[in-house]
Amino acid sequence: MNLENISNNKSFGGWHKQYTHQSEVLNCAMRFAIFLPPKVNEGHKVPVLYWLSGLTCTDENFMQKAGAQRIAAELGIAIVAPDTSPRGEDVANDEGYDLGQGAGFYVNATQAPWAAHFKMYDYILDELPNLIEANFPVTSQRAISGHSMGGHGALMIGLKNQSRFSSISAFSPITNPTQCPWGEKAFTAYLGDNKQAWAEYDSVELLKAGKPSLPILVDQGSEDGFLAEQLKPENLIAAAKSVDAECELRMQAGYDHSYYFIASFIEDHLRFHHQHLNAK
Amino acid sequence: MNLENISNNKSFGGWHKQYTHQSEVLNCAMRFAIFLPPKVNEGHKVPVLYWLSGLTCTDENFMQKAGAQRIAAELGIAIVAPDTSPRGEDVANDEGYDLGQGAGFYVNATQAPWAAHFKMYDYILDELPNLIEANFPVTSQRAISGHSMGGHGALMIGLKNQSRFSSISAFSPITNPTQCPWGEKAFTAYLGDNKQAWAEYDSVELLKAGKPSLPILVDQGSEDGFLAEQLKPENLIAAAKSVDAECELRMQAGYDHSYYFIASFIEDHLRFHHQHLNAK
Repeated sequence: MNLENISNNKSFGGWHKQYTHQSEVLNCAMRFAIFLPPKVNEGHKVPVLYWLSGLTCTDENFMQKAGAQRIAAELGIAIVAPDTSPRGEDVANDEGYDLGQGAGFYVNATQAPWAAHFKMYDYILDELPNLIEANFPVTSQRAISGHSMGGHGALMIGLKNQSRFSSISAFSPITNPTQCPWGEKAFTAYLGDNKQAWAEYDSVELLKAGKPSLPILVDQGSEDGFLAEQLKPENLIAAAKSVDAECELRMQAGYDHSYYFIASFIEDHLRFHHQHLNAK
Repeated sequence: MNLENISNNKSFGGWHKQYTHQSEVLNCAMRFAIFLPPKVNEGHKVPVLYWLSGLTCTDENFMQKAGAQRIAAELGIAIVAPDTSPRGEDVANDEGYDLGQGAGFYVNATQAPWAAHFKMYDYILDELPNLIEANFPVTSQRAISGHSMGGHGALMIGLKNQSRFSSISAFSPITNPTQCPWGEKAFTAYLGDNKQAWAEYDSVELLKAGKPSLPILVDQGSEDGFLAEQLKPENLIAAAKSVDAECELRMQAGYDHSYYFIASFIEDHLRFHHQHLNAK
């Protein structure tokens, strides 16, 4: 069994657990965290919300700071928080916080030196859910959410794989990575100069392809310092309107880019996903 | 004005704010955090819960990890989280995580080299509340709580100053520091060999002096790795029984010493304090 349990914390009657495993797709050891609600203690299988974190984060930021366990325990939802990139001494890196380790951008890199390990798209879409569904008391019902770079990941992976998820949500997502400095830097490094390759990982471009079959909820703080230059939710909403997508953007007055913002609204996101997981 | 605002995050309709100030008592610059519930936006003054953190912590651990803001926002309670010791290059320190900076133990040190700065008892009891009550929209109603070393601080400061607080609570407190390795090391360093000086900062000894006028709530995880050697809640309960104190100890099966434990039960503590703040 390629799965090593490295921590266990009882939390709201359920369990927060961390594991390491050797990822075949990423070709390195990876850590993830899972919250299992108390319902699994009684022999039930539960659906899974995959949470994708932002730049510089690991599996720990969301689990420690979002305050999601209380509601997940109540609703009977497992939460899986992967790391944000491959890691290790053998894995390529960059001095910037926005490229390399901690900044995988949830794409499959095609360019040297990144292509050897940076296949986060395949990891999040296939390898990790397969591992989770083979080893934990969960159903194959899945929802996806994330923050900032991870909000981009959730929107993009959800839109490209609509049959695999019941619903998508995001906090402060990078909605249009082909049109902002963070995305331009990362996509140039990971994908090269071919803008057609970029478009396949851009939620605004993906949304333009047609009305999605699943609902989308986005929360964005009005005082987020990255809003105008990096996040551009107006581009997502314009694309959503053009295809009549079920996509709600809530501009939250006064909130910033931090986990204080996420914690304030995570309950709404879990209830949104719960409603659609149950409807499926 | 000796108070510099260094961060602001909107949180559950209220505000998390960090400040620095020059502490006269500690003779160094100090940072603290305050959560102001939305009620203050409407011109109301609110009571204050002082939260004392444990070894190695700063003002940030509780504010980021406990998930307290949701309930404090609902109940209209401000929370103040100070640092756990004086800080700075000019302040004495030790290589151990359990002595010196990050480990002030909420006492007034009398021994060199600690006595120059380590006056956390006076800081928490007087200087900080005076600063808070002079500069923020709060009443003089106060409750006190904390975790581990901070649970010791909350119990000890509350018991020594019963007219200053409405209620005391603690998570995993060091109940009897004169009888455990953490306390023995710190009290020897800060207070010297005089065990009578130690007893004045020991909650079990303080409780034996007579029935307290304020209620106490303690949560303790049964799987806390520090339980038997360092925390000894049975000593607190024995002392409480001997004086008929209103002191409830809840042993929480399966929980550990972490913030996952604190987050699971912080709502109960805030509702407990709210009830007694209102009754006063």
